[in-house]
Amino acid sequence: MLGIPEGIGLDEAAPLLCAGITLYSPLRHWGAGPGKKVAIVGLGGLGHMGVKIAAAMGAEVTVLSQTLSKEEDGRRFGAQHYHATADDTTFEELAGSFDLIVNTVSAPLPMEKYLSLLGLDGTLVNVGAPAEPLEVPAFALIPMRRSWAGSMIGGIRETQEMLDFCAEHGLGAEIELIDASRIDEAYDRVVASDVRYRFVIDAATIA
Amino acid sequence: MLGIPEGIGLDEAAPLLCAGITLYSPLRHWGAGPGKKVAIVGLGGLGHMGVKIAAAMGAEVTVLSQTLSKEEDGRRFGAQHYHATADDTTFEELAGSFDLIVNTVSAPLPMEKYLSLLGLDGTLVNVGAPAEPLEVPAFALIPMRRSWAGSMIGGIRETQEMLDFCAEHGLGAEIELIDASRIDEAYDRVVASDVRYRFVIDAATIA
Repeated sequence: MLGIPEGIGLDEAAPLLCAGITLYSPLRHWGAGPGKKVAIVGLGGLGHMGVKIAAAMGAEVTVLSQTLSKEEDGRRFGAQHYHATADDTTFEELAGSFDLIVNTVSAPLPMEKYLSLLGLDGTLVNVGAPAEPLEVPAFALIPMRRSWAGSMIGGIRETQEMLDFCAEHGLGAEIELIDASRIDEAYDRVVASDVRYRFVIDAATIA
Repeated sequence: MLGIPEGIGLDEAAPLLCAGITLYSPLRHWGAGPGKKVAIVGLGGLGHMGVKIAAAMGAEVTVLSQTLSKEEDGRRFGAQHYHATADDTTFEELAGSFDLIVNTVSAPLPMEKYLSLLGLDGTLVNVGAPAEPLEVPAFALIPMRRSWAGSMIGGIRETQEMLDFCAEHGLGAEIELIDASRIDEAYDRVVASDVRYRFVIDAATIA
């Protein structure tokens, strides 16, 4: 059983039970904290919680997003750096620089390029799962002893730990609270990537 | 500078400077030892040193080879288990069972099948590097928080550590010592996979 701590609204806590723990778990497991350079790929429902949590853990956080359109948000959530992945110079500039990259994108990314951003013993963790297999040359991993890993949500004990952590650091999800009557509209907006950053349905409005 | 310790012949020490350290480094880094289940994929020049070193570290060692043709050798080197990867029941039987798999094969293997052999938090390390990219679905990594990593040879300090470890445990490479005049013949046999497990050229015979 989970308890929502005092200080987090129930509405902004709701997405923590999925997006929050999905990002908290790998960030904790792979040691995000002071002195660690962490990149979050994708600034959506998952990614925005990754930025908030990694920053609260004390890591130096970079957002890697397709464009710079959400840069202001990213910095407000705690990112110190923000780069557009549509710009190839990003990959040259940041080569070999991260300890940990958490990839929240469910579309198939060119993994070799993203792995090249890891430094020695760095790990790229997929929490987004494209349907298609990804192509990775072994030599993208071998020279710097890099790892490509996966992580899936988290257990109950760690979810409570995450909720307590978020309460302690004043973190909640960025949400748009809607009535149940607007579910169809919200669904279409999710499909169109037009949500910042999670819809939450007010259960009191469910007939 | 490296010193070959007393107790290892110079001929059987020679391959340790490549195959030995290439396997020692990931086995040490990923914690092969008592209580750990380690699989070595491929029983060639690299793999046979992996079996010897992992067994000497105290791990429970399994060889995954195409056929059972070298099983007697594998067990003599210290493997407790030996399975043929040409037999699909191997993958069913061993699913989720290893902490660490070191893949020494340079041919492109079906990575999803090999990753399925890892247990929770298990790591598969490539030291063999196929020329072609490998196809890996993110979901082969996500549910058990598995990692796919790479490792390349090792530094001088760790190479000395490996030589000292091998001397302490009485380990050397299995070699066939040849005169320089037989290099062409040896090359053809390497191409035909007919070497158990490394050729070493006697430098005294180089004209």
